[in-house]
Amino acid sequence: MDTVTSALLTDLYELTMLQAARQAGTASRRSVFEVFTRSLPEGRRYGVLAGTGRVLDAIADFRFDEADLRYLRRTGVLDEETLAHLADYRFTGDVHGYEEGELFFPNSPVMRLEGTFEDAVMLETVILSILNHDSGVASVGSRMITAARGRPCIEMGGRRVHEDAAIAAARAAYIVGFASTSNLAAGAHYRVPAAGTSAHAFTLLFDSEEEAFRAQIASQGVGTTLLVDTYDVDAAVRLAVEIAGPELGAVRLDSGDLGAQSIRVRALLDSLGATSTRITATGDLDEFRVEELAQAPLDGYGIGTRLVTGGGHPAPGFVYKLVEREGADGQMHPVGKRSQDKATLGAGKRAFRMLVGDRAHAELVLPGEAEIAEFQRELTAELISAEASPEWRRTNLRPLQVPMIRGGEPVQSLRAPQQVEAARARHAASFAELALDVEDGPDGPIAIPTVTDGIEAARVLR
Amino acid sequence: MDTVTSALLTDLYELTMLQAARQAGTASRRSVFEVFTRSLPEGRRYGVLAGTGRVLDAIADFRFDEADLRYLRRTGVLDEETLAHLADYRFTGDVHGYEEGELFFPNSPVMRLEGTFEDAVMLETVILSILNHDSGVASVGSRMITAARGRPCIEMGGRRVHEDAAIAAARAAYIVGFASTSNLAAGAHYRVPAAGTSAHAFTLLFDSEEEAFRAQIASQGVGTTLLVDTYDVDAAVRLAVEIAGPELGAVRLDSGDLGAQSIRVRALLDSLGATSTRITATGDLDEFRVEELAQAPLDGYGIGTRLVTGGGHPAPGFVYKLVEREGADGQMHPVGKRSQDKATLGAGKRAFRMLVGDRAHAELVLPGEAEIAEFQRELTAELISAEASPEWRRTNLRPLQVPMIRGGEPVQSLRAPQQVEAARARHAASFAELALDVEDGPDGPIAIPTVTDGIEAARVLR
Repeated sequence: MDTVTSALLTDLYELTMLQAARQAGTASRRSVFEVFTRSLPEGRRYGVLAGTGRVLDAIADFRFDEADLRYLRRTGVLDEETLAHLADYRFTGDVHGYEEGELFFPNSPVMRLEGTFEDAVMLETVILSILNHDSGVASVGSRMITAARGRPCIEMGGRRVHEDAAIAAARAAYIVGFASTSNLAAGAHYRVPAAGTSAHAFTLLFDSEEEAFRAQIASQGVGTTLLVDTYDVDAAVRLAVEIAGPELGAVRLDSGDLGAQSIRVRALLDSLGATSTRITATGDLDEFRVEELAQAPLDGYGIGTRLVTGGGHPAPGFVYKLVEREGADGQMHPVGKRSQDKATLGAGKRAFRMLVGDRAHAELVLPGEAEIAEFQRELTAELISAEASPEWRRTNLRPLQVPMIRGGEPVQSLRAPQQVEAARARHAASFAELALDVEDGPDGPIAIPTVTDGIEAARVLR
Repeated sequence: MDTVTSALLTDLYELTMLQAARQAGTASRRSVFEVFTRSLPEGRRYGVLAGTGRVLDAIADFRFDEADLRYLRRTGVLDEETLAHLADYRFTGDVHGYEEGELFFPNSPVMRLEGTFEDAVMLETVILSILNHDSGVASVGSRMITAARGRPCIEMGGRRVHEDAAIAAARAAYIVGFASTSNLAAGAHYRVPAAGTSAHAFTLLFDSEEEAFRAQIASQGVGTTLLVDTYDVDAAVRLAVEIAGPELGAVRLDSGDLGAQSIRVRALLDSLGATSTRITATGDLDEFRVEELAQAPLDGYGIGTRLVTGGGHPAPGFVYKLVEREGADGQMHPVGKRSQDKATLGAGKRAFRMLVGDRAHAELVLPGEAEIAEFQRELTAELISAEASPEWRRTNLRPLQVPMIRGGEPVQSLRAPQQVEAARARHAASFAELALDVEDGPDGPIAIPTVTDGIEAARVLR
């Protein structure tokens, strides 16, 4: 396929709306769009935002080239005036958002765009594609890392998803703590460490397992990982140690009852003197299977399908909504639809993580900056009247939204690998603030409530 | 992100295996790799293969460029001899496969690569990424089209998946019968008709719904689709007909009880004289919801999330397995692992759809071409001895695998839009052969059994 500009990663209706608004004279109304999700999937305690860095790049690159315009002209839907406008388009508004790697909860305003209607409306599709995909992977990946209790995890799901999604999935997995990826493109572009040694095809290529093992060790050294379940696991483990010696790096189990096998293989390795040889498990793992394997003598996991497909919840359901816009009176007005099951609150929101000491207690979402003082007054009054413990005096509001684009210009220009390292650090720090007990298992109630005023917040702290 | 060559859409272990095999002198052994899936998801009656055209393009483009080689050198895992080999790499083997759009069943050998081990092993990741993703979308999309009973469906899920996956998803949806897509890139690259008019943001941009409707009709004409659930559906429908007149193209419902609303809106439209105005439904639809809406007075559907994420089964579980390879004796040998839960049968397979008249009865998978005569003998003998009805004499074996690449050269070079039209025709024809009853609903047993000899086949026909 030819190179695709980010501008065509767009739904047609963004452009028909733009054209109609231009003709009606409303296209230049100042507008505020927000990205948020109404809920978390059942059992999920939090979500992890990923893709922000990719969104900022996509906005910077959002230009219609000659080929795009030729195609759009051919659809017959857009007139020459609109096409000329698109040819010159670049986003000139502002973007604020949660840092990449940050946690989110229902109604967290993870990104806010301010500009004219025509400037911001067109970015909907590409912003949602990126944030929904990457956050879907990051949200389940974070649970897997918790379940793995410090044992290193390799992302290896590329073959189960679209070939370009595979790269973004590896990137998202690294942000939430995966140690490495099988995907070379993610290694090249994001400097995610690449890992992998061999598959069953390698063993089957040789006339015997022994020849295959000898060939792999000759090429990769005794520190390699040998795949031991092509024929008979026990025989393969004996053979592996016989050939590599006790310095053998690791053996990999990819089928069968991984828990029972790992106990047998650990005992066998130890009896052969290979006490430092690690055991890695792969094959249809997810956070629940990894949790069940917590007591098994395993030293690492390779996780694929369930990670890269979001563990049954491929997209967090992020939507991009017009929440505030200029009216005919020149003033800004909050707006929102009143559909039966999808009502939204208007106005551009401000968000804070409410902490006591270094522990998160609530997600605070206020309709505007002006409401912060009001919030503080309400909270203090409520807690004093309830004679709450003075612990709450250590309450701290960590601002979650940072400026990302101002007047169309990026506030900070990070190279791709730096973006990813910063997001990995952000995820680790924000996850620590939740102070979840790993023994509770992956599922549970939402970790902290989303509150919108001081009275609700006081209820949380009392 | 920089442009990615298809060669880096690869797992590292493909290259470490290649290097080890080269060093051991086995890399040039003739090898046969096959793509198949062991099972269908519970309830699925068939799968639809999509992505073949994209795979053929990826194989043709599979070259390591300078930047790729620099990155690979930096990993420190590959030696200069291997890097030099990769710099010159191009696939020189043969590919046979099911035509794009064809149906598949458990163990259908949908693609077969023949070449040296080192030629074919590296293509695993990109082949599986494409076939798993595209077939996941096509397989659920075909069910949605059946449930829609001829009412046109628009693919509009791009915002719920990775931005590039969105393009491939639109392509796959079109192959199985979707009428159009919201995605402009799919329109530009594959000539899938693009569709869409407006979102809630458009209505909210204006000071009143009336101004919004007037602006949309002024720009798009009375044939447009007006979104009527931003405030009050009934009021919006009245307003829409008042402004557009009875020539109004369509109204769209995007929330609430779509069935009940459509009945009310149909009656209202008819009472206003807008008897030819269509009603389109969108919002969290899948094949089951569409099935439930069969009796509702709806004229079309827009389907997003559940389509592009594979309806709960994002990937069909296609694997790429070495099934046959040259041994030290210079002869070809079937190979397969004997893992507890993933045992595979060796040998490159030949596949046929077994039809009686124009109706499919079985998927025939034979270990080689030579077995066809044997199959015919077994089948005939069994049926005659069982005194089966002479209907079976109309049995016809339609070959499913066609040559696609010979000696590294494409057998047929179709442009992207032609690929997609051919696949759409193939899907329609093969689906018709199943003769499924739409009244049975989407789920059921697998439509036809996979048989591997004449005795099994006779059991199906008796």
